[in-house]
Amino acid sequence: MQALSSTRREFLKTSTIAAASLPFVGALSSCARAEEPGRKLGFALAGLGSLSTYQIAPALQKTKSCKLAGIVTGTPAKAEHWKAQYGIPEKNIYSYNTMEKMADNPDIDVVYVVTPNALHAEHTIKAAKAGKHVLCEKPMEVSTEKCQQMIDACKKAGGQLAVGYRLHFEPNNLECVRLAREKVFGNLKLIQADFGFRIGDPNQWRLDHALSGGGPLMDVGIYALQATRYLSGAEPVCVSAITTVTDPAKFKDLEESVAWQMKFPGGILASCTSTYNFNDMDRYKVFAENGWFELEPAYLYDGIRGRRSDGGQIHFPSIDQFAAQMDDFAQCILNNQPTKVPGEEGLRDVRIMMAIYEAARTGMNVKIG
Amino acid sequence: MQALSSTRREFLKTSTIAAASLPFVGALSSCARAEEPGRKLGFALAGLGSLSTYQIAPALQKTKSCKLAGIVTGTPAKAEHWKAQYGIPEKNIYSYNTMEKMADNPDIDVVYVVTPNALHAEHTIKAAKAGKHVLCEKPMEVSTEKCQQMIDACKKAGGQLAVGYRLHFEPNNLECVRLAREKVFGNLKLIQADFGFRIGDPNQWRLDHALSGGGPLMDVGIYALQATRYLSGAEPVCVSAITTVTDPAKFKDLEESVAWQMKFPGGILASCTSTYNFNDMDRYKVFAENGWFELEPAYLYDGIRGRRSDGGQIHFPSIDQFAAQMDDFAQCILNNQPTKVPGEEGLRDVRIMMAIYEAARTGMNVKIG
Repeated sequence: MQALSSTRREFLKTSTIAAASLPFVGALSSCARAEEPGRKLGFALAGLGSLSTYQIAPALQKTKSCKLAGIVTGTPAKAEHWKAQYGIPEKNIYSYNTMEKMADNPDIDVVYVVTPNALHAEHTIKAAKAGKHVLCEKPMEVSTEKCQQMIDACKKAGGQLAVGYRLHFEPNNLECVRLAREKVFGNLKLIQADFGFRIGDPNQWRLDHALSGGGPLMDVGIYALQATRYLSGAEPVCVSAITTVTDPAKFKDLEESVAWQMKFPGGILASCTSTYNFNDMDRYKVFAENGWFELEPAYLYDGIRGRRSDGGQIHFPSIDQFAAQMDDFAQCILNNQPTKVPGEEGLRDVRIMMAIYEAARTGMNVKIG
Repeated sequence: MQALSSTRREFLKTSTIAAASLPFVGALSSCARAEEPGRKLGFALAGLGSLSTYQIAPALQKTKSCKLAGIVTGTPAKAEHWKAQYGIPEKNIYSYNTMEKMADNPDIDVVYVVTPNALHAEHTIKAAKAGKHVLCEKPMEVSTEKCQQMIDACKKAGGQLAVGYRLHFEPNNLECVRLAREKVFGNLKLIQADFGFRIGDPNQWRLDHALSGGGPLMDVGIYALQATRYLSGAEPVCVSAITTVTDPAKFKDLEESVAWQMKFPGGILASCTSTYNFNDMDRYKVFAENGWFELEPAYLYDGIRGRRSDGGQIHFPSIDQFAAQMDDFAQCILNNQPTKVPGEEGLRDVRIMMAIYEAARTGMNVKIG
């Protein structure tokens, strides 16, 4: 797996606030039980690229209910490095061809799939068949069919499947969900949501359609899409879209920028954009009948903050979102409760993103059933 | 003509800065000649609603090259009031049925048409036939056919026709045009432009499709559309759109909100929204390859200001935009030079707005030839 560009790494900065000081994790968790004595669940990271290296492995050190127990990688040099750095025993190191053998390894409870998008189904299904719970990075996969296969495999195996929607555990985003749901500014009218960045290395897998399944929409536009859904609490019924390319040498078979619009039940409108070709676009703004609220930045690993039309600030302290999500998933597993970001949630986004691509390709609005 | 709601009046506040202190008017004018000794051109206002009362008539007092010489109104009580307030002689007061008689009145050089949208052609053509130059409020008309008739009538009569695009004379907007044209932040990639407000009185002509030709798109969305065109310096080639209504009692036969997207030559993308159902949406942001710049508010009568990604502020003092535009038009006429906001410019916007409505109605992207 190709490492992420430094541009992207710098763009999505790591939170430096320790998990121990997180006042929100417990309160925000959908499943957490304070009384749970519980052992720590063993996580195996499948895919040791930039996200695992700089975000997830450090985050695991901050969790209360999880530990880094194993790795899955196709690169022996990476295995050696991680083994040394994190003291991972040899028996907990797998390749993508040996993942099935995890079935015999009680150290590993959860596989966190962090491989390129188009490999998520293969690795999720292998983990499920080995009897493991799966936390899969977003986008869930590159087609609705593969998403469904992942859901079916985990269900059949009896394990849980969660998608890496870290903002469902982020206090500023949760505050905006509260403002929307409690109609603090009245009924919602329009949601604008925009997320993009300028991608670096032209040879990375994100620019290879076979591995990514699409461009910025699949990678970061999905956050804007997610925002419209968790803010409205509803599902879009119709989408229109336009994609553009200004640098065809770099963007050969995927979009460089995309703008899409969605109509929600009751007439709520959403207008969204995403890009791989410029920085500093990271926000959402919700207009309601009596006022508005916004986050900018809205989707980063830390520094998220916002404003309200009544002069109020939205500025909860940053937390380690990955740690919060992993702890929540562990508690869901330990307490046999459903995650709030299940595979079905990932499937819904992929279905909508496919509709967005269809709308852009055909020039026709696409109804979403 | 129905007076505008107080909501709208308060929303679009009057500039209080005197024209005498405007350092930009001369420099910004497309036609102004500092050496022009010239007489003041006589303006007749056709339509004495809120815009004429609270903006244009006061602005005329601040102009260097114009004076309020006459009025056209269908309401005798208004005529009496204006006659007294501005000392307008009886012979310079017309109704819409007597406008033709202006042909014999040398006091009047220009008719400023400020009537409801769907009456612009009728009143412009009457003024042109009377040998007058015409400044017509935006939107130019409610169909491309009527726009073309206005252009043809003025051309045939030998008079100039300008459209009330006041922001072409506003220094903060002109600075953004400079940033775009000189590629200070590189080639443009995406323009987001949004303008809307919550409309008041449900009985006003703006909510009557027969008089308005459409909803917020025609009234204020046109500013966002204009911005994408004067910032890019290009014409959109394709548009997609979605309109919504959440209050069908108020918005019977026109949109309440609209989101539309446009593709420009070279792949520049535009994403725009407009509404009649909430306040505080008044901005544009231009993303280019090496940075961004934005105005918020972008379209008001005063208080326009903005920021640049390099930390720079965009904050030229407010001017009376109506005075600036009328002075510029007067200089164009006196110097026999073309206005930079001619009828053809108004026609282009109406053509694009009709394409936006077609895209929303049919659910299909519309190519603009």
